[in-house]
This record gives sequence, structure tokens and C-alpha cells, in this order.
Amino acid sequence: MTTSDSEKRTGIWLIGARGSVATTAIAGAAALRDRLIPPTGCVTESPELLDEGMPGFDDLVFAGHDITETPLPKRAEQLEVAGILPRGVRELVHTDLAATDQRIRRGVAPEEAGHDQLETAERLIEQLCSFRELYGLSRVVVINVAATEAHPPARSEHTGLEELEHGLRRSDPDGGTVLPPSSLYAYAALRAGCPYADFTPSTGVRLPALDELAARRGVPYAGSDGKTGETLVKSALLPMFSSRALHVHSWSGTNLLGGGDGRNLADPDNVTSKTTSKQRAVHESLGYPVDGEVHIDYVSALGEWKTAWDHISFEGFLGNRMTMQFTWQGCDSALAAPLVLDLARLLARAHERGHSGPLPQLGFFFKDPVASDEHRLVAQFETLRTFVRRLREEQ
Amino acid sequence: MTTSDSEKRTGIWLIGARGSVATTAIAGAAALRDRLIPPTGCVTESPELLDEGMPGFDDLVFAGHDITETPLPKRAEQLEVAGILPRGVRELVHTDLAATDQRIRRGVAPEEAGHDQLETAERLIEQLCSFRELYGLSRVVVINVAATEAHPPARSEHTGLEELEHGLRRSDPDGGTVLPPSSLYAYAALRAGCPYADFTPSTGVRLPALDELAARRGVPYAGSDGKTGETLVKSALLPMFSSRALHVHSWSGTNLLGGGDGRNLADPDNVTSKTTSKQRAVHESLGYPVDGEVHIDYVSALGEWKTAWDHISFEGFLGNRMTMQFTWQGCDSALAAPLVLDLARLLARAHERGHSGPLPQLGFFFKDPVASDEHRLVAQFETLRTFVRRLREEQ
Amino acid sequence: MTTSDSEKRTGIWLIGARGSVATTAIAGAAALRDRLIPPTGCVTESPELLDEGMPGFDDLVFAGHDITETPLPKRAEQLEVAGILPRGVRELVHTDLAATDQRIRRGVAPEEAGHDQLETAERLIEQLCSFRELYGLSRVVVINVAATEAHPPARSEHTGLEELEHGLRRSDPDGGTVLPPSSLYAYAALRAGCPYADFTPSTGVRLPALDELAARRGVPYAGSDGKTGETLVKSALLPMFSSRALHVHSWSGTNLLGGGDGRNLADPDNVTSKTTSKQRAVHESLGYPVDGEVHIDYVSALGEWKTAWDHISFEGFLGNRMTMQFTWQGCDSALAAPLVLDLARLLARAHERGHSGPLPQLGFFFKDPVASDEHRLVAQFETLRTFVRRLREEQ
Amino acid sequence: MTTSDSEKRTGIWLIGARGSVATTAIAGAAALRDRLIPPTGCVTESPELLDEGMPGFDDLVFAGHDITETPLPKRAEQLEVAGILPRGVRELVHTDLAATDQRIRRGVAPEEAGHDQLETAERLIEQLCSFRELYGLSRVVVINVAATEAHPPARSEHTGLEELEHGLRRSDPDGGTVLPPSSLYAYAALRAGCPYADFTPSTGVRLPALDELAARRGVPYAGSDGKTGETLVKSALLPMFSSRALHVHSWSGTNLLGGGDGRNLADPDNVTSKTTSKQRAVHESLGYPVDGEVHIDYVSALGEWKTAWDHISFEGFLGNRMTMQFTWQGCDSALAAPLVLDLARLLARAHERGHSGPLPQLGFFFKDPVASDEHRLVAQFETLRTFVRRLREEQ
Ligand SMILES: NC(=O)c1ccc[n+]([C@@H]2O[C@H](COP(=O)([O-])OP(=O)(O)OC[C@H]3O[C@@H](n4cnc5c(N)ncnc54)[C@H](O)[C@@H]3O)[C@@H](O)[C@H]2O)c1
Ligand SMILES: NC(=O)c1ccc[n+]([C@@H]2O[C@H](COP(=O)([O-])OP(=O)(O)OC[C@H]3O[C@@H](n4cnc5c(N)ncnc54)[C@H](O)[C@@H]3O)[C@@H](O)[C@H]2O)c1
Ligand SMILES: NC(=O)c1ccc[n+]([C@@H]2O[C@H](COP(=O)([O-])OP(=O)(O)OC[C@H]3O[C@@H](n4cnc5c(N)ncnc54)[C@H](O)[C@@H]3O)[C@@H](O)[C@H]2O)c1
Ligand SMILES: NC(=O)c1ccc[n+]([C@@H]2O[C@H](COP(=O)([O-])OP(=O)(O)OC[C@H]3O[C@@H](n4cnc5c(N)ncnc54)[C@H](O)[C@@H]3O)[C@@H](O)[C@H]2O)c1
Ligand code: NA
Ligand code: NA
Repeated sequence: MTTSDSEKRTGIWLIGARGSVATTAIAGAAALRDRLIPPTGCVTESPELLDEGMPGFDDLVFAGHDITETPLPKRAEQLEVAGILPRGVRELVHTDLAATDQRIRRGVAPEEAGHDQLETAERLIEQLCSFRELYGLSRVVVINVAATEAHPPARSEHTGLEELEHGLRRSDPDGGTVLPPSSLYAYAALRAGCPYADFTPSTGVRLPALDELAARRGVPYAGSDGKTGETLVKSALLPMFSSRALHVHSWSGTNLLGGGDGRNLADPDNVTSKTTSKQRAVHESLGYPVDGEVHIDYVSALGEWKTAWDHISFEGFLGNRMTMQFTWQGCDSALAAPLVLDLARLLARAHERGHSGPLPQLGFFFKDPVASDEHRLVAQFETLRTFVRRLREEQ
Repeated sequence: MTTSDSEKRTGIWLIGARGSVATTAIAGAAALRDRLIPPTGCVTESPELLDEGMPGFDDLVFAGHDITETPLPKRAEQLEVAGILPRGVRELVHTDLAATDQRIRRGVAPEEAGHDQLETAERLIEQLCSFRELYGLSRVVVINVAATEAHPPARSEHTGLEELEHGLRRSDPDGGTVLPPSSLYAYAALRAGCPYADFTPSTGVRLPALDELAARRGVPYAGSDGKTGETLVKSALLPMFSSRALHVHSWSGTNLLGGGDGRNLADPDNVTSKTTSKQRAVHESLGYPVDGEVHIDYVSALGEWKTAWDHISFEGFLGNRMTMQFTWQGCDSALAAPLVLDLARLLARAHERGHSGPLPQLGFFFKDPVASDEHRLVAQFETLRTFVRRLREEQ
Repeated sequence: MTTSDSEKRTGIWLIGARGSVATTAIAGAAALRDRLIPPTGCVTESPELLDEGMPGFDDLVFAGHDITETPLPKRAEQLEVAGILPRGVRELVHTDLAATDQRIRRGVAPEEAGHDQLETAERLIEQLCSFRELYGLSRVVVINVAATEAHPPARSEHTGLEELEHGLRRSDPDGGTVLPPSSLYAYAALRAGCPYADFTPSTGVRLPALDELAARRGVPYAGSDGKTGETLVKSALLPMFSSRALHVHSWSGTNLLGGGDGRNLADPDNVTSKTTSKQRAVHESLGYPVDGEVHIDYVSALGEWKTAWDHISFEGFLGNRMTMQFTWQGCDSALAAPLVLDLARLLARAHERGHSGPLPQLGFFFKDPVASDEHRLVAQFETLRTFVRRLREEQ
Repeated sequence: MTTSDSEKRTGIWLIGARGSVATTAIAGAAALRDRLIPPTGCVTESPELLDEGMPGFDDLVFAGHDITETPLPKRAEQLEVAGILPRGVRELVHTDLAATDQRIRRGVAPEEAGHDQLETAERLIEQLCSFRELYGLSRVVVINVAATEAHPPARSEHTGLEELEHGLRRSDPDGGTVLPPSSLYAYAALRAGCPYADFTPSTGVRLPALDELAARRGVPYAGSDGKTGETLVKSALLPMFSSRALHVHSWSGTNLLGGGDGRNLADPDNVTSKTTSKQRAVHESLGYPVDGEVHIDYVSALGEWKTAWDHISFEGFLGNRMTMQFTWQGCDSALAAPLVLDLARLLARAHERGHSGPLPQLGFFFKDPVASDEHRLVAQFETLRTFVRRLREEQ
């Protein structure tokens, strides 16, 4: 069976479509399509993961939700000033950005999320479906790259699909909110039959009720929280300590970042979902408790750049105490954007091949992988490689 | 079939038996046997690699060659002052050190190596055999932890066993030396039927002629250059860059160290084998040339401690330039000693199970692994794990 | 006029006399007296500051207050295990520690401070006076090296001596506490005519009422918060940025420390006085607001060692953004103890020469110097040098 | 007395006028004149050093020597790509760069320097004098910002002016070169009555013969080797160790840099003058020998940016061993360029006020200050401040 071009036309619907990550991904995809840049940072373009069956860069159509009005071309200019988008590239993809901006719809802000959740969900579903239809897309992958939310309190409606749909239908007598925005987006995506991924640590699809929905609708999902900086390095280094039987006493981290993500994480409520997600790897990889805090500080002067310093104290033979430190200076959006494209292509392909429910095979991309407690980057990569090979062979 | 205790009694013959690594290994093995310390840093004691069939810590008898006269108990005191051997431990293993010191024989210094190499080899073989016999050992594993040598010029005698034995028999008309000391030790070990490992970057067993000898004698060997510090971290980090399709432009390293190893590596001839071995991982893992130098500086104030600083510049999506730096502050002998014990146990076991020739499965331990170009630590660990499982099952 | 030996016998009364800093200072003074160690870290022994008129190490008698019962010799053993006190030294000064321990009196814990403050003060004064008399001391210098307190709320009693003494006399109708323990100790010291220094960021002598008392009693005082680590480096680096007209955008710091001080500063109330004191230098030296947070994390595995990482982003010519980072790995008590001895000697000498009130000339020693906004270390050193020269000449 | 505008018109003649530092200085001066940028990094614009009597940015006319043909506007474009010159600024100063480029004359390459040195010198002098006359300049300051040369062997002609002029007049029978290019430029400058500064570690004016000439011609000079990165930080940190009586055991440094300076210093001959100059501060400030090497590695990927890592091991009270590390990531040309402007203004003013010979008061700017062994940055700044105040008052 050959895949005709029209069968590959794929929509990428980004929640937070005017943010730094989204803008970089949209601009980057256009630049890749036109071969203005090499696919550095794009793992689905590496020889080991290449799969002709995945949608190509000229098969992608972007759209999304956001709650800001700043248009994409304007955001792209800001990213040029910040040193992330080369001027030449930005100018050449201007038309793509302007066209995509027309396809961005008004999303749901946290403070609005409480009202008429079912009605809101129907609107979101309807938007996803019209997009798919209008552009004749074989499928639409939804990826959440919106600002990180605070983790909501647990509710009985989260435990099963029936409870959830019952809860969404009636208004909460206590005025509470059944689903945070991220989960409302995920609910809509799954109901519309769209593969879905949480690139943020927000709750999103990570509720039993939504897992049930994904299974019922036969849709695959992935998450959470893109692994791009400090945690990426952690997941590379942790197996060194464990496989060498070195005992880690403490692992402390300080992250300095500016940009919108930094400003949002300066809010103590929002940062908790992030720091929790960042420490998961340490505890799960080592299997014993480790001292040390993770700080995330907003430093506006750093712009879109992040600096992370980690300090690890460990013990070797005969009780000898040693330390390792690292400093990571990365451009977060440039690290995240190609992974967003990778995820969209992989989810589209997995959906096509009939995969549904959580995809632990995509743990390579995430700080807090669904349905998996493997955090070792190399092992995750091997799993991903095997997964892609099977996708290819199944054909 | 059960392995009777006497069948497990194993000799460990250390070349450089009075050096820091050797002294720490000998003292540590006695402390482990008496349960004075936990097996931190000893990978063959980790649940994933444990194999009851390997010799236990009470099955080991140490001996070796060295060219210094400073007795082991004295070296141990120096290591106590340097903060590596806890006083309590040193006092409790004093008797073991004194006893082992009696079994250390005069080795071959580089400047003496040229004379009557065959005669010298016969003496070394005879020493290994008497040790095995006298102590009723099922086998003797020889490990080279002597000072790093300069790499010798290539010679035709190195290319095959016949050429080598011919060359050793007659005296070189040009006064040259057929084998450097490390290779002479390796030759003797193999001829005596002893499994052998190069923990140093010296030539040792890494000659076609000796590979042939190992095959003929049915003896396994491993090497080279224990991976304990900067290169260990490199081999954990390199797959992060490659699997994420990030392009590494430069990888620069500065190593500051005191101790005997530091003093020896301050000699520009000797350091070359080390820096070559240290850069192998970068080039082979990435598959493209990378800028950057590796410096090894002798800083006496650091004593037995090493500080390595590495600086990596790399490129991500859209040409964004990023950097990573790390500082590693480790106690080299405490990192190396448990691996020496691990290697001895694994080689003994592999020999028992009939393995011979190079063991690429032990690449996990080395900067410059024999018969392998896999440098990714996690992949090496998986290979080792499979190897140990098979050793266990073969039984 | 010659200073007879008896005139130089000087008491050093330490608040927190069984803490790490105090124990290291007491043990170190005995070791210096017996010439067991060189005076590394002791600035009053450097050729530039040496003043024969200051009390020598054999003129010092130690005593103090604490609220723990752990005796000094026991604390010294703990500091030996922590790697701060060399075993040889500890054994040789054991008798001094045991004798000093006999002179330590029960202090005032924060939770007890509220009761009968005047009565408590009289007891403290009486203890100081008996010590001076019993040992025939020409004077007693009181130095606060107790655990850092939370900063108390401002009160009208703090504004003048009359108000204070009136407030201490009657019990607070609202059950509040007029003075925190550190200020109660300072009040007692000044009333007993003892020169006083705050080596901690606790309130101590830094109240208008106590300043008035010091003037009236003709007693000099100094403070606050010994400058030994991150802030010491800051005060060396800040003038580099300002004198070169480089614009600092952010200065972020993370301090990892174990020990008693670390445990105490893990309490968010106590840490505030510390972080405030730590940021003073940045803002006052540069004269404009600078971004960045200071974190103090308790990491028990680090024991008595502290690691500080600072990240500075700054701007140069043509808007170029640059960064500097430093890591400081120091042993806090070993840095602090000799300064405690220096302060005691300098305060004793200044008192002898008739100085009273705040001594801004000792700003060199402090994060938060009294009566001074000069933070540049080199300038502070020049001031101190001039001060010592005058003390010498006045004779 | 007021200084009329015409009296202030000042020439700045740069040796290496098309290099990174020169181009940045010329572009920056035009931008400052037109108030396109703030004077960040320019110390003569700070309130503490401002002197109305110095030439203003609209009083400066640039010219110089170079041996490359790449015109200034082209170099400026390269510096824009490297991220040093903001595009806006570069476009706005284009005309100035093009005009200055017309005033750049062919210099003397090291390989040409041997021929007819007196004749060459006469040509250089003539070029300086015509420039001064043609533009009606009150004076011309010559600053060497050319590529660092290898240090030449000592020669008897260097020891006195008479010997030198004698030597220049006749051709060397052995074919040797009397003066390296940098000294030939310095000789010409002094003979033309121009104040002179060596911003490089090249020999330049640092010969007894040239000192004599400066005195005779009544011209002030300054040098050597601009203090902008690692050594700047060293000179800020060294007094911390010395004033606190901490004993420094080792100070190791690795400098990674790209750019033309990096490429030139990759030559082992040239780098020696640099590393020598870099270590001067450590030895002279501490007064005792300190271990540690300085490496300068060319890493082309770093472009015009430099990363320096320094590691310092030191000892405190009771023999405690501590360490400090720092990483400096700076843009060398942006750090150097404003200092070149500062030096030109200060030398012009000093010349006007009648100063001649070496100016140790400008030690603040140099790694290897003439006629001074003070390296403490704060002390150097105080000296400079006093010097500027006097210049102002003398009026
Ligand atoms: N960049 C990385 O390396 C990386 C890694 C892991 C996770 N993330 C996560 O990705 C997300 C995006 O990061 P960014 O740097 O692009 O941030 P950003 O602040 O630039 O963009 C976030 C966008 O989300 C929009 N938004 C906020 N709330 C919304 C809502 N309820 N509905 C729809 N849109 C909403 C904002 O208007 C904004 O345009 C963050 O949550 C971040 O934590 C990023
Ligand atoms: N410690 C580590 O982490 C590590 C890692 C990889 C490799 N190594 C290598 O292990 C070796 C030992 O390191 P160390 O720190 O113990 O050094 P060391 O200097 O303390 O000990 C070396 C010993 O070898 C002896 N020796 C020298 N030449 C000899 C010869 N020809 N024959 C027999 N003995 C000889 C010396 O007398 C000395 O006792 C070095 O080559 C080092 O490069 C160490
Ligand atoms: N070590 C340094 O470099 C440094 C630098 C600046 C300031 N300081 C300050 O010095 C102080 C001492 O540090 P440390 O490391 O010795 O701490 P520590 O915890 O080892 O010792 C503190 C001692 O104070 C005692 N104490 C607590 N409350 C008391 C009270 N109300 N009255 C009397 N004693 C009391 C404790 O029992 C303990 O013995 C801390 O406040 C610290 O912040 C230390
Ligand atoms: N940038 C800094 O922070 C800094 C600090 C201290 C010293 N320096 C020194 O300043 C100098 C210039 O640095 P750069 O980054 O501009 O280097 P660069 O390589 O960009 O420029 C050097 C220029 O000198 C020219 N040149 C070479 N030999 C010459 C000669 N004999 N006569 C005339 N011109 C000659 C070259 O053609 C080139 O244009 C170097 O010596 C460097 O070591 C720079
Ligand atoms: Na924080
Ligand atoms: Na070098």
C-alpha cells in the first residue's frame, strides 16, 4: 500500500499558538520545507528515525488556540530581536506566519474555564473539525504548548469518563471548575478524534477519565513536559551514577530564565507543576531519596535564554565524597520547537498505524513520561528507535 | 554443577602493585571481605550484575609487580593523609597490606625493558605460575595499573606471534626494544594462561601478535584505560547530543590533577597516549570532526583529587549556538579501585566459562574499549548486563 | 608607656560558644599560641596589620554563652570527622577545650527571651563581670557567633535608651518581647563595658537605643554578619563592574550548605536576615537596581562545607551581553574563626585606645558594615590598614 | 583658560586599524558621538573620571596602519554577523567607517620588518605628521591594537637610544632585525611627538632605548596588553586572597577563543608573550610562587567570544583546602574598544598637561602595567581617579 500525498496532509493544532515555542516551530517548519535550514535538532530527520511514511514538512498545516492577540509575525520579530530567529529566515517565512495567524482561534483562559465547560468543549471540537475538513487533512494532531497552569485539586469527576461527562453537563453547585483549561483542550481533542500531546507539565490529558476517552476513541496520546534542558542532562547523567553504583547524596538545581515562560513560572502556583516534573527523573532513576531543591528564577535580562546550574554530591568507594557541577546555557524555544514537530509527525504516524491510548514509546521527549518510569535517555532512544522501525515495517 | 570454594580461589596480580589505584583496590577488597565498608562503586555487587559464580571477596589473593620499594602499608598511610583511605579502615587492613607486600616482585622499568626480553618474560611467567601454584589458585588475573608509558613506535614484530617470538629471541641489531614493559607483562600473562586487562592507556595487550597469543592460549583479555572521570561523563553526555540531533562544534577539556599519575602525565611523551584515548569517544560517537583540545596539568596541591572542566559548544535548531560546561571533582583512585576488582572478577568468570580473546562486552569500563566502537555508557551497561546474565545461565 | 603583660590579658566571650565557628576559633587560638599551625587566614598576623599592642594568642581567655549542652571537646570531635580540625591539633588542644567548656554559661533561647528581660540582662552582666574579675582580665570582648535569629518587628522601645530601659523594666501588656536574644546579649555587654561585635546578621547591637548606650559607656562595637564566602567574592568583584562602567543586569546566587548554620537557615524566618544582608553589597555598590534572587539551601551531605554558585549577567559597549559565573567551595568555620580572633584583638585594642561607638573601620570583616556603605574589599582593607597604623602610632 | 574647540581636535592612529578591536572602537566612537548608544564600558565617561578638558567624541579623527586589505565597512559587517555590532548602528556609521578606511596606510608585517628599518621609520613618521597637519589636529595618539607578535631576542641596540639609532642606520651583518614591527611603530610615534600606548603584549615601547626617546621628546606612553577578561577578574580577586591572608596554592586557567586574535595566538611563538603577561599579576600580587598553567586554545566556533575558566586552590585556617572557580564569557572586542577610546583621551590630555615618559597611573587598563607592580584593580582605579582629578585641577 502506498500513501498518497493527500493522505499525508496533516494538521498541527497548537494550544498556545502564539507563544515562543509555537512561533519557532511554525517558522522552523516553513524554513525546513523550503530547505532554508538544516534539520538540526529534529530527531525524526536523523537517519536512525527517518520514516518515509511520516508526514513531510510540506504536508503540514498549522493552526491553534491562544488567548493573546499579538499576531504571529509580530512574535516572530520579537524572537528575531531575542536572537532566536535569524532575520533572513524570518523574512522568508513571513507569509506562512501571517497565513497561520488567520487560523488561530480564541482559546480558554484559566479564569474563564469555569463557565459552561461542555459548551466550551463543543466549540473547541467544532473548531478542530472544521479545520480538518476545510483543509482536507487526513488528521489533526493537537499539541499543548501554552503557558504552564497550576495543578488543580483532585476531583471525583476526573476518575472516570462517565463521571466526567456527567460533571461537565451540570453546573457545579460550589462554583468550582471541573477541568482546568489544558484538560478541556485535551477532552475536545480526543472527542474530535485527534492525537494529542502535552508539551507542558499542565494536567492536560493526564486524568483517568481522559485516558478512558482516548481508548474509546482509538486515539494515541503522549506527554508530559518537553525534556529540553536541565532535565535532559539529568536523564543523560543519572544512569552514569546508577550503573557505576555511585551513591548520589544530593542533586540541587537553579534555573535562570527570562521570556514568557520565565515570567509565568515566577508565579509560585504555576512553578510547582514544573519543579515536580523536574525532580521525577532523579527519584525514579535512583530508587532512593536524594536531597536538594530545584529553583526556577525569572531573570528578565536573560531573554529567551536559560541558564541552569546543577550541583551533585555523590559518594564512591571507601566513603569518598565527590561532586559534579554543570552549567547548561540553552535557548529553550530552539530546543523545544523541533521536538514539537517530531511529536506531531510521530503521533500522526502512530494514529495512522492504529495505535491508541498512552504512548510510553515517546518517553524520550518528556520529563514526566506517560505510562513509563524509564528516564535513561539512551534507553528511551532505543525504545523510540524500535517503535519507529515497527511503524515502518507494519506497513 | 556447584562451584566448590577451592575452585573459586582467584589470584589478582597487579602490575604497579604499590601505586594509588592498586593500594586502594587491595585495601578496599580486604575491607569489603570484612564488611567494613559497603560496596559503593563496585558494579559487580549491584543487583543487576551480581553473579554467584564470580569469586567472592574472600576468594581473592593479591600479588604483583612494581619498581618502587615503598611498601604497601606506607602507601596506605599516604593515602590516609590524602583523605582517601579512612584511618579506621587502614588500621584494620594493615595485616593484609603487609602480607600482600611480601608477594610483590620487582618489575621491569621502561629503561630496563630493552635487555634480554625473552629472558625477562620467562622470569615474569615463572613468577605468575609459582604464585598460582603456591596458593592453589584456580586462576590468576593480571591487571596493569602501572604508570602510563609513552606509546612505542610501530615494529614489524608486533604484527604476528611468529614475528614477535622470533624478535624476542634474538637481540635487536639497532639496540631497539621489541616490546614496551606493558606488552612484555601482557605477553607473560598470556603465556602463563592468565586473563589480562589494561587499566592504563599503555600499549599492553593491544598488539596483533598478542591477540593471536590470547586466542591460541584460550585466554580472555580486556582494555584499555579505565573510564573514571572526564571520559566517563563524556560517554554519558555524548549520546544526548547525538540522539537529539544537536551538532557539537567543540569539546574542550582541562584536567588538573596531583598524585603520582599527575606527575607522570606531566611528561609530554606519556600524556599523548592519555589524551588520544580521552578523545576517542568524541570522534567515534559523533561521527564528524569536533574542535577542541584536552589538557592534563599537574597541580601538586590537588593531591589525589582530580578536577576536570569541560566546555562544549553546540548548535540547535535554526542555527542557535548553545554551550554546556561541567566540572568533575573526583578522587581518581577511589573511582578506579572498585573497577579493578570488578574486572578481575569478570575476567576470572569469563575465563572459567571458556571465553577467550578480546572481550568487547567489558567496554563499559574503558575509555578505549577493545573490539568495539560503542562508547555510550548506557548501551555498554546493557551489553555488560546481558553478558553477565549469559555467564550465569551458561552454568 | 609599655603595656605590661597583665594589662593585655583579654577575655573573649562568645555567644554561641559551642557552635562550629566558636569551637574552631577556640581550638585554633590554642593551636596558634602553641605554634602548631601557621596563622593562615588571620589578618591581624599579616605584616601589614600587625600591631604589637594587640593582645597575643597567649593573652586570650575564652568563655561564653550557649543553649546546647554538647561540650566543646565533643564538638571538636565532630569537626574532626567533618574534616575541619586535623586530628593532631584536636588532640593537642583537648585540655584547652575542656577548660573553656567549664566557663560556658547557659544563654537565652529565643523562646525564653520574653520573660523578665531586665532580670535576665542583670544575670548576663553579672556573668561577664565575674569572668573579667576572676581571671584578672583588662577587658572582655563579646562576639555573637550564635545561630542567626529571625528579625524582630520594630518597636518604639528600640528608638532610644530611655525608652528601652523603661520597656525592659515593666512587662509588656501584650506579651510581646522587647529585645530579641541577640540584642539582650548586646545590651548586657555594653552595660558591662565590653566591646561587642555581631558576627551574625541577627539584630544584636544594631538598634538606636544600643548605639546610645555604647556611646554613653564609651565602648566600641562592630558588625554585622561575617563576610566569608559568596559575599566576600561579591565585594571583590563588584568594583570591577562599577569601575569599568559595565552595567550589571542580574546577580543570582545559590548557596548549598550543611552543618548547624545550614539547618538553622533552612527556616524561612531566619534566612531572611541572611539574604537581606547578602544583597546589601550589590545594591549599594552599583547604585541601581539589579535582578536576581539569593537562595540558601540546606544540603546535609555537604557537612560543614559550603558551595555557592553565582551568575552575573552584564552589558558592555554597544549593548553586548556577557556573563560571569563563579563557584566557591569553602569551609565556612575555617574562614570565620580567624576573623573572630582578629575582631576580638582589634576591638580590644580600639577600646584600650579610647575608641567608642560604631567602628566603620572594621567594615572589611562584614557583609553589612555598621556606619558605612563602602563594600569594596580593597578599599575596606586600606581603611583598616590606616586604622591599625593610627592605633599603633597613637601609643 | 578655556580650551578652544580647535585645540581639542585629536587624532587616534591605530596600528592594526582594520582588526576587531579597532573596528569596534571606530564604529563605537561614531555611535557615541551621534548618541546612538550609551557610553557603557567607557570609563572616561563615568562621573568619577569625567574631565571636560579631555577631547570629546566629536573631536576625534581616526586613521592608522594595517597589513590586511579588507576594508573597514567589510570588517564591520563581519562583526555584525558575529553579533558584536548591532545592525542599526553599523548602518548608521557606515560613512564614518568608509571615510576612516581611506586614512589607513599600509603597515609593516613581521616578515618585512627586517629591511631598511630607518627608512621604514621615516615613512611612518611622515605619515603621522601629514595626518596631524592635514586635519589640523592638536595631537595624534598612537595605539597598537595589531596582532600579538612573538617576543624578539634581546639585543644590545635596545639598551639605549644612541645604540638604537646607530643600529637602525647600518644594516645588520647577520641579517637580524633590530626592532620588531611593534617597536618600530613605537619609535616612529615617539619621534613624531605622538603619545603612544601598547594595547597588545608585543614589545612595542617597552625598551630602554624607547623610554629614553619618550623622555627626550616629552611624550607620555602607556601599556601593555589591555586587561579585559581573565586577567581583569584575576586582578579583582587576587587582593581578596592576599588581604584575607589565604594562601593560594594553584591558579590554573584555560581560555577558549575564536576570532583573529584566537587564530593568531594558536601560534605557540605568539602565545608566549600573552601567557607571560597573564601570569604577571598572580606572582607579583601574592609575592610567592603559585602552581598552575594558562592555556589559550583556538576554538573557531566561539567566533569573537571568549570563555575563560579559572580554577584556584587555596588554603585557609588550620590547613583547610578550598577552591574557587570562575567562568567568564565575554566579547573581547566590546570590552577592549571603549578602553582604547579611554586611553586615547587620557593620553591626549596628559600630553596637553605636560606629562611625559611612562604613565603608571594608567595601570588600571593593563595586564602588564609599565613602571608599576600594583595589580589590584581597586587600587589602580583610585590612582587613576587621583590622576584625573589632578589633570582637571592643574588647569
Ligand atoms: N521551551 C522549552 O524548552 C519547554 C520545555 C518544556 C516545556 N515547555 C512549556 O511549553 C510552554 C510554552 O513555552 P513558551 O516559552 O512558548 O511560553 P510563552 O509564554 O512564550 O507562550 C505561551 C503561550 O501560551 C498562551 N496561553 C496562555 N494560556 C493559554 C490558554 N489558557 N489557552 C491558550 N493559550 C494560552 C500565551 O498567550 C502564550 O502565547 C510552557 O508551558 C513551557 O513550560 C517549554
Ligand atoms: N585512577 C584512575 O581513575 C585511573 C583511570 C584510568 C587509568 N588510570 C591509570 O592507572 C595507572 C595507575 O594510576 P595511579 O594513580 O595508581 O598511579 P601511581 O603513580 O600512584 O602508581 C603507579 C605505580 O606503577 C608503578 N610502576 C611504574 N612503572 C612500572 C613498571 N614498568 N612496572 C611495574 N610498576 C611500575 C609505580 O612505581 C607506581 O607504584 C596510571 O597509568 C593511570 O593513568 C587510572
Ligand atoms: N561560618 C561563617 O562563615 C559565618 C559567616 C557569617 C556569619 N556566620 C554566622 O555565625 C553563626 C554561627 O555559625 P555556626 O556555623 O557556628 O553555627 P552553629 O549552628 O554550628 O552554632 C551556633 C551555636 O549557637 C548556639 N545558639 C543558638 N541560639 C543561641 C542563643 N539564643 N544563645 C546562645 N547560643 C545560641 C547553638 O546552640 C550553637 O552552638 C551563624 O549565625 C552564622 O550565620 C557564620
Ligand atoms: N580584545 C581584547 O579584549 C584584547 C585585550 C588585550 C589585548 N588585545 C590585543 O589586541 C590585539 C588586537 O586584537 P583583535 O581581536 O582586534 O585582533 P584581530 O586579529 O581582529 O586584528 C588584528 C589586526 O592587526 C593587523 N596586523 C597584524 N600585524 C600587523 C602589523 N605588523 N602591522 C599592522 N597591522 C597588523 C591585522 O591585519 C588585523 O587587522 C591583539 O594583539 C590582542 O591580543 C585584545
Ligand atoms: Na525560586
Ligand atoms: Na596548551
